Amino acid sequence: MARTTGSDGGRTEAAIREAAVTLIARYGYEAMSMRQLAAEVGVQAAALYRYFPTKEGLLFTLMREHMQGLREAWEHSRSAGADPARQLAAYVRNHIAFHIGRRHATHVSNMELRSLSPDRLTQILRMRTAYEKELRSILRDGAEAGIFSIEDTGLTAMALIQMMTGVIVWFRPGERLSIAEVTQTYLSMTMRLVGAKMATDTTASRVPSDVQRML
Amino acid sequence: MARTTGSDGGRTEAAIREAAVTLIARYGYEAMSMRQLAAEVGVQAAALYRYFPTKEGLLFTLMREHMQGLREAWEHSRSAGADPARQLAAYVRNHIAFHIGRRHATHVSNMELRSLSPDRLTQILRMRTAYEKELRSILRDGAEAGIFSIEDTGLTAMALIQMMTGVIVWFRPGERLSIAEVTQTYLSMTMRLVGAKMATDTTASRVPSDVQRML
Repeated sequence: MARTTGSDGGRTEAAIREAAVTLIARYGYEAMSMRQLAAEVGVQAAALYRYFPTKEGLLFTLMREHMQGLREAWEHSRSAGADPARQLAAYVRNHIAFHIGRRHATHVSNMELRSLSPDRLTQILRMRTAYEKELRSILRDGAEAGIFSIEDTGLTAMALIQMMTGVIVWFRPGERLSIAEVTQTYLSMTMRLVGAKMATDTTASRVPSDVQRML
Repeated sequence: MARTTGSDGGRTEAAIREAAVTLIARYGYEAMSMRQLAAEVGVQAAALYRYFPTKEGLLFTLMREHMQGLREAWEHSRSAGADPARQLAAYVRNHIAFHIGRRHATHVSNMELRSLSPDRLTQILRMRTAYEKELRSILRDGAEAGIFSIEDTGLTAMALIQMMTGVIVWFRPGERLSIAEVTQTYLSMTMRLVGAKMATDTTASRVPSDVQRML
């Protein structure tokens, strides 16, 4: 069912996905009915089933595309060959920018894993693990190079990801801080959390000036 | 309707609360019916309504008691008059210990705010703000005393709370790490994140030995 986004079918499919994300974020996946979703989009339930034969298939599609989008955004923003501190800064920037623009989809992806079938759950978890592994690699490279000082690569990766994704819970555009300001502060916190340092740095517990310049 | 936990009524009420937390964590609040909950507890729906006249009242009770429990645990574990680094360590320890033991209740409290009426939402948000304010005070005291080096007290508090609460997403007892090991690593990460330092410390970006001893 390959449809271009410009076609009528493509537009309908996109409208279904968008409405589904909003309804699931608002009421939860189990509480949303396909009938309710069809009404929201303004199509017959039968039309809805042509695009998404099952409700769980729809949920899976939303989650898979969320993870694919995140992965693509990261592939696009990473700088090959850069040192670990620069790579970490790119990861933080991309993670915050991606999630801040997709609050509802992020909620759905994080909260509704419980409703996937075992096979599909495994697929989504594999995608998440692969994405988290990128961060663990950066942290490991930095620790091995003596740039980062961390106790446990896995725990540090989870702590950073949850700290960053948590931005969507409280951040609202147009309030006290801009996205750029929030990102800047999270970058500084991240660099301190991983104990980022340069060989020449002698000040205690502060983000080194070399690192600050790249932030 | 004051009931002691030991009475039949008290036991029934506790069983309802426990089953409700499990069902809401599994299916979401909107998808859970009072009929389903009554069946789970093994009582008639009419009996359920004697304890909780409305489903939203039940949700509110669960969330209020979660926040009250958190606040009481913190009041019990804080050490009056201690310096900010020690206070922060106590806050981290209590936050992780409380949430790790209440995974489902934490999910319910964080995810189902959307289903509270405006008045009750305001009450719960006030309780959360008061609890978060405790952390902000510790951070501000530490920054003013020159012990912590942070850019933004509010953002740092949110980052720490989300990083710590995030432990419940991946932590499972009996796997690679014990609760004590996880807590220890999170304490080290927290101290670095807030730029904790002592006047005599000269090493870069590392948790000072004075701070380490108290962890």
